[in-house]
Amino acid sequence: MPDSFRPVALEHASRLINHGPTVLVTSAAGARRNLMAAAWSMPVEFTPPRIAVVIDKHTFTRELVAASGAFGVCIPGQSLAGLTYAVGSTSGRELDKFARHGLVTRPGPVLGVPLLEAGCAAWLECRLIPERHAEDAYDTCFAEVVAAAADARIFVDGRWDFRDDNTELQTIHHLGAGKFVRAGGVLHARAA
Amino acid sequence: MPDSFRPVALEHASRLINHGPTVLVTSAAGARRNLMAAAWSMPVEFTPPRIAVVIDKHTFTRELVAASGAFGVCIPGQSLAGLTYAVGSTSGRELDKFARHGLVTRPGPVLGVPLLEAGCAAWLECRLIPERHAEDAYDTCFAEVVAAAADARIFVDGRWDFRDDNTELQTIHHLGAGKFVRAGGVLHARAA
Repeated sequence: MPDSFRPVALEHASRLINHGPTVLVTSAAGARRNLMAAAWSMPVEFTPPRIAVVIDKHTFTRELVAASGAFGVCIPGQSLAGLTYAVGSTSGRELDKFARHGLVTRPGPVLGVPLLEAGCAAWLECRLIPERHAEDAYDTCFAEVVAAAADARIFVDGRWDFRDDNTELQTIHHLGAGKFVRAGGVLHARAA
Repeated sequence: MPDSFRPVALEHASRLINHGPTVLVTSAAGARRNLMAAAWSMPVEFTPPRIAVVIDKHTFTRELVAASGAFGVCIPGQSLAGLTYAVGSTSGRELDKFARHGLVTRPGPVLGVPLLEAGCAAWLECRLIPERHAEDAYDTCFAEVVAAAADARIFVDGRWDFRDDNTELQTIHHLGAGKFVRAGGVLHARAA
């Protein structure tokens, strides 16, 4: 783990995707591995931390997730917007996208899922909760988060901390067709 | 509909929540109606447009949605951050939150769901797809979008258009505890 990554307590893990960032889904089964972009994910529970991610049934990732029962959710910072778009536009059946893009991974502490840290703000290691109907009908994969970590420069004491000096790590949100918005200016809501 | 709202073609409706904004879920059954904030929603399909939203089974909204089979997803702009936090922190069982906050609604064109436009960037009118297990186990409600509209100052030709002159309508993304980030600076991804 790079010096700046720190474990995130499981009860805070769902917060990592609470604000709707586009994520990178990582997976491996045997000698095969893959990486795809996913704009469609959300928490469904804080404790135990559970999430849902839409992974199309025709993707290589879905095949690897079905085989391994596990996947990673890595949250790219804005410097990885180009990579995120690129890995969302090609299939890992034809090439190893990690090798193609020179990406270094570390194995997840619980399930050994390949995880990205460089350029990412955080990751969640997830165990698939088999839900055949939701997977078939809506491509929706439910999972429990079994480990999580975040870069301490942007996630501090269980909370996101977006500041002017960490814009490179701030999350990206896909509008479509390669156009992202960066989660930027922080607003403190006052009750209406 | 205010002059600036325009219908959104159904095949573009899922794009409205593609980037993970926090939304306001509206509902009504008989003479009762309600409004709650939801950070946890995502598209699950473009065509037909389908989405998933987490609505806790103990909420008044869930009761109204179960009774009516319908709900609205209204997407607040940043000027409604305070309202969004307020309606996410109180229950509609005790008071009519629309009246409490002086909110004007219009009925959805297909199902008559109460929808907000002032201060919002867009809305989606949704018909619940009954999925008892997902609702029970994950509080996840699947729905089909039957109508959608957006403010033409920020959603143009089926796409979001975030600019320096429409920051008030730009979407908000909840980090937790009343702290939101506004989806701000637009990034055009170049393939890595």
